[in-house]
Amino acid sequence: MENNNDNGSDSPFDISGLLNGDRRSLARSITLIESSRVDHRVEAEELLDKVMPNTGGSIRIGISGPPGVGKSTFIESFGQYVIRKKQKIAVLTVDPSSKCSGGSILGDKTRMPKLGQSDMAFIRPSPAGITLGGVARRTREAILLCESAGYDIVLVETVGVGQSEYAVSDMVDMFVLLAQPGGGDDLQGIKRGVMELADLIIVTKADGDLKRSAMQAENDLKSGISLLKKDFDIWKPKVLTCSSITGEGMEEVWSIIQLYQDTIDKHGELQRKRGHQARTWMWSEVQEALVASLRESPLASDLAQKFEVDVVNGRLAPTVAARKLLKTFMAGN
Amino acid sequence: MENNNDNGSDSPFDISGLLNGDRRSLARSITLIESSRVDHRVEAEELLDKVMPNTGGSIRIGISGPPGVGKSTFIESFGQYVIRKKQKIAVLTVDPSSKCSGGSILGDKTRMPKLGQSDMAFIRPSPAGITLGGVARRTREAILLCESAGYDIVLVETVGVGQSEYAVSDMVDMFVLLAQPGGGDDLQGIKRGVMELADLIIVTKADGDLKRSAMQAENDLKSGISLLKKDFDIWKPKVLTCSSITGEGMEEVWSIIQLYQDTIDKHGELQRKRGHQARTWMWSEVQEALVASLRESPLASDLAQKFEVDVVNGRLAPTVAARKLLKTFMAGN
Repeated sequence: MENNNDNGSDSPFDISGLLNGDRRSLARSITLIESSRVDHRVEAEELLDKVMPNTGGSIRIGISGPPGVGKSTFIESFGQYVIRKKQKIAVLTVDPSSKCSGGSILGDKTRMPKLGQSDMAFIRPSPAGITLGGVARRTREAILLCESAGYDIVLVETVGVGQSEYAVSDMVDMFVLLAQPGGGDDLQGIKRGVMELADLIIVTKADGDLKRSAMQAENDLKSGISLLKKDFDIWKPKVLTCSSITGEGMEEVWSIIQLYQDTIDKHGELQRKRGHQARTWMWSEVQEALVASLRESPLASDLAQKFEVDVVNGRLAPTVAARKLLKTFMAGN
Repeated sequence: MENNNDNGSDSPFDISGLLNGDRRSLARSITLIESSRVDHRVEAEELLDKVMPNTGGSIRIGISGPPGVGKSTFIESFGQYVIRKKQKIAVLTVDPSSKCSGGSILGDKTRMPKLGQSDMAFIRPSPAGITLGGVARRTREAILLCESAGYDIVLVETVGVGQSEYAVSDMVDMFVLLAQPGGGDDLQGIKRGVMELADLIIVTKADGDLKRSAMQAENDLKSGISLLKKDFDIWKPKVLTCSSITGEGMEEVWSIIQLYQDTIDKHGELQRKRGHQARTWMWSEVQEALVASLRESPLASDLAQKFEVDVVNGRLAPTVAARKLLKTFMAGN
């Protein structure tokens, strides 16, 4: 069963198929929202408008960790665990470094061969060759589409390039960080700012020779995160160990995720967080669209080109240039 | 001699005084650009337009470091050193946490009593009660004004709240980080991402009992930063120690700053960097001004309020809302 090989044909997609959870329809709908063609964009927004009442039902989980920590192996193992618990899981990737067309290596479902074969899972690579802002916007929309198709868990994976963890944490309910076994210096591989985002840290590879070392890391991380402040007090970040090989710890991971969801939901924090994310997202879309309009307006864009030269050469103050550009743009519309 | 106590009267300021380096005129011009009154804004932009040919002549240095590292003491000592070298120095503060009206404690010249008394120095606290974006915009303009008044060094100090180091590094030629004496764990007080911004790290308090410990920190930091990548290869970040009490190391600090300036100037990197900063600044001003216009447009702002509720409640997709808002705004102008 193929679910990711859609190449975006022009026939209209099947909304009822999407709402019924058909994976091919889901894949095609994501291809549609990833398209930058103007007519596709119109169609994409009509689609989003229609599916909105069916969105919001998943737990949205961001996941990141340093290279070599075993992200794919963890997702493969965790995915199979939750599927046994009758949870449908979608995995989306935010990877602004993705260059190869047709899907990044990171997002490729061959990284998670067993999960890729299950009817209960949907794996979607990051769109290639676009900027973080672009990836993030499309991933936000893809989350909504996965929810409309009935997925219970939407996992948004990121590679930790540039600011991608911040972008992901702004679109999910819960941010999970994977950490390597080992003490002291090894923990520094995690950027401090990123650690502050984590609601849950999972030390991977807690099996065999590394088990002891994983428990050491768990202890170090526990004392480390106890010093970090969180946005709200109702949830203290947790640290766990697990093994993607033996499956040990997976049950605890899943119950902590459920506990987190219950906790923030009960306190109204989930609604507040999603509301805030959606509002911010709307205004950042407005911002981008406004600048795009200005750049497309013949008068203003000519002036912008001229001003850029003067601004770059220090002959014109950027604030003055901006004010004049705005005036020209507003007068011309 | 008072130079910071201007409270923004309405009489027009003296441009020739500013260009002649009069500190009272400089203080008043900064008060003008900090004002959000519409007529002041118009006047401020006329002023900037007029002084632009006289800007660009300073070395713009950003400076940050963890609390307790001795930023004020360093600036006091460094300032006096460069004044003896016939350099005029201006100190501006970016402190989005500043709450008290009339100037933050951090930027208060009483923190640097000797420097505050010199005719060769100008100290300006961060404007109080505005956001980082606002502080950053006004600080950018204040740098230009200081340059027009003939300052050779413009030091932009930040407290390291939130993203303020990134904001500051985007408006200066060189970013200097102060670090505490001490080894290993102590260095972790510096955020990793911030260390990546540094062109020069100065270990403070290299005197008396702490001298040994400062040298230890210097060595640790040298091996630490050797692993970090920089934007360009022509300058490798340097690490120095100095004492603000004995003045030891101050000469080396100043010669490294001059070497940095010469190096990036010679390679065209200074011009490229400033050009890039100015272009980015212009577009971010355009962005903000466009959104402000939309928010001020009666039709669009009514719709925005309505949409915000739907978006926050998950009934309307943010991208769809944004597109409709834009349409209404553009049609109404």
